[in-house]
Amino acid sequence: MQQFTAQDKQFMQLAIELAKKGQFTTAPNPAVGCVIVKNGNIVGKGFHFKAGEAHAEVMALREAGENAKGATAYVTLEPCSHYGRTPPCAKGLIDAGIGKVIAAMADPNPTVAGKGLKMLSDVGVETKVGLLADQAELLNKGFLTRMRTGKPFVQLKMAMSLDGKTAMASGESKWITNELSRQDVQQERAKSSAILSTSQTILADDPLLNIRWEQFSEQLQQDYPKETLRQPVRIILDNHHQVLPTHKLFQINSPVWLVSEKERELAGFPDFCKHIQLNVENSASYLQTLLIELAKRQINSIWVEAGATLAGALINEYLVDELIVYIAPKLLGSNAKGLCYLPQLTKLADAPEWQLEKLMQLSSDIKIIYHRKG
Amino acid sequence: MQQFTAQDKQFMQLAIELAKKGQFTTAPNPAVGCVIVKNGNIVGKGFHFKAGEAHAEVMALREAGENAKGATAYVTLEPCSHYGRTPPCAKGLIDAGIGKVIAAMADPNPTVAGKGLKMLSDVGVETKVGLLADQAELLNKGFLTRMRTGKPFVQLKMAMSLDGKTAMASGESKWITNELSRQDVQQERAKSSAILSTSQTILADDPLLNIRWEQFSEQLQQDYPKETLRQPVRIILDNHHQVLPTHKLFQINSPVWLVSEKERELAGFPDFCKHIQLNVENSASYLQTLLIELAKRQINSIWVEAGATLAGALINEYLVDELIVYIAPKLLGSNAKGLCYLPQLTKLADAPEWQLEKLMQLSSDIKIIYHRKG
Repeated sequence: MQQFTAQDKQFMQLAIELAKKGQFTTAPNPAVGCVIVKNGNIVGKGFHFKAGEAHAEVMALREAGENAKGATAYVTLEPCSHYGRTPPCAKGLIDAGIGKVIAAMADPNPTVAGKGLKMLSDVGVETKVGLLADQAELLNKGFLTRMRTGKPFVQLKMAMSLDGKTAMASGESKWITNELSRQDVQQERAKSSAILSTSQTILADDPLLNIRWEQFSEQLQQDYPKETLRQPVRIILDNHHQVLPTHKLFQINSPVWLVSEKERELAGFPDFCKHIQLNVENSASYLQTLLIELAKRQINSIWVEAGATLAGALINEYLVDELIVYIAPKLLGSNAKGLCYLPQLTKLADAPEWQLEKLMQLSSDIKIIYHRKG
Repeated sequence: MQQFTAQDKQFMQLAIELAKKGQFTTAPNPAVGCVIVKNGNIVGKGFHFKAGEAHAEVMALREAGENAKGATAYVTLEPCSHYGRTPPCAKGLIDAGIGKVIAAMADPNPTVAGKGLKMLSDVGVETKVGLLADQAELLNKGFLTRMRTGKPFVQLKMAMSLDGKTAMASGESKWITNELSRQDVQQERAKSSAILSTSQTILADDPLLNIRWEQFSEQLQQDYPKETLRQPVRIILDNHHQVLPTHKLFQINSPVWLVSEKERELAGFPDFCKHIQLNVENSASYLQTLLIELAKRQINSIWVEAGATLAGALINEYLVDELIVYIAPKLLGSNAKGLCYLPQLTKLADAPEWQLEKLMQLSSDIKIIYHRKG
């Protein structure tokens, strides 16, 4: 077990805080922070903000300049070793004369996966891994899940009444939860690579499914300027080609992907609308195939906002990593629409069980985060 | 506005802690604590434990003895002024020579209602009211509600899955919530004057509906010795006379009240089983009539454990003061049984709304307490 000093922890903590500044914008890249320290003084700080722009290490090295020589770099993820849209950071660190690199965790990306650290140690740079790894994991749940499993991190949002209902029998659902909950949903959506919904939801509610900066909390508006807003891709399961160019989705100039198994011409749809034709093999399910396809298209994380049918199907196939539940202090009664369609479930022992991760009060609403158990 | 000193608060706080020792046992009486202080020193402490036994003031005066002369008595509720099973405490305080009485709150009991304090001030004892009144209120939600409204305080317990279900379609419900939640239910039941259920529940689950001391938390077992256990009255709505002497209810030698509108002979039932014939007048509902009748029979508080029908009916008539909801991290799906039957509800604006009072985590379960809004 490698030992780290209290000072090491302090610098890595700062690198993690820096990394968070990119959490809304870096997709499909991971959020990364970097702090360069010489003789106990911080000489450079950096974080990755957006794919195609400078990596955290490059930004920190620029600030450090000549001071990088012999300094220690704290990075929240193993430096990259490959030429992508930018040159490899490991090379940058070597060229700048960095003496030691401490990484919170290795990068599971197969094109990096230890090669960055090896590139460094091969030329005599001291390397250590594993400082505040738990926190570093949380920075990039989506990216890391995609790299490890070939599927995105799936978050299923459920906004419901106290008796587990999501709408009246008529479909009326504006609004069950309060303003704070809806603000929180905007923030959660904003972190995600994509929002997943269905043609049923589009036909019933005709939503925009975009991020509305105006609905962010004041704090978030300060931290995340409007001009840098990244809209998640809006992915709609539309097997029967029911979504039309006149739906409100297309009022926002930002990617929409319509998914079906058949071929589809997108005549009349705007350019930002694409079609994904899913080729479901016999051995895989529709939803599994979908997730693998989306991961290939660099979707790290998916925020699902849909009805009871898709929710039930995802849960039934164990494809949900995180349930995010908002509970309003209302009772909608027995005729209202339920949360989750699981028609095959008859025994209590078979009921899907979850691990409570976090409990928050949002005025009179409650937010609960559950993780998949086991 | 009368002023109280920091020391006053400290002594009243102690009186409130003492009162809590009676919270499981005093029904139908209120829980009361008393601290007697002379020259800044506590000379007597007392609390009411059980109806028919010494009141808090009497117990504290006994301990104080001669020191009561000229001392100050801190009581969590106005001293009683009437001859009940014991002589009036106001008289006891006067006879002992108490110089000053500070009460957390006046007693809304019509047979007291300011008369206790007046009895004291009439003979020159200084009196003050209103110190830590909020906390004193919480000690006796049941008693105070009955005195003020002529109805018991009604708590509706709901134990459900994350999607608002209380049982599988088959009726299977053992166990949805975890052991900590079920322990908590035992503690909540134990505070209540009565447990209310229905013949449907008896026929479906054949429960005991008693307090099981063995299921108390270790702490509660220490605070509440088994030999002093008070069993709440078990009240069963049984309009069609379906409950039989062979039901498990009758395995516990403790009051059961069967309620119906018709006359009923209780042949074959044990002596501890009584029948209440409800005489529902045209202008009142069955449930309103029931609650008024139960208040007349000195039921301060009712803990409702029943199915969706009774839950829905109580909610629909605004008869629930407190919802106590346990949420297990499971999904039971669309075929499972719902929480609350409210067939007449069609518009979101008409949905009953609640005020979140308290949120607790019980391992992976959640407990939420809601109060009636407005």
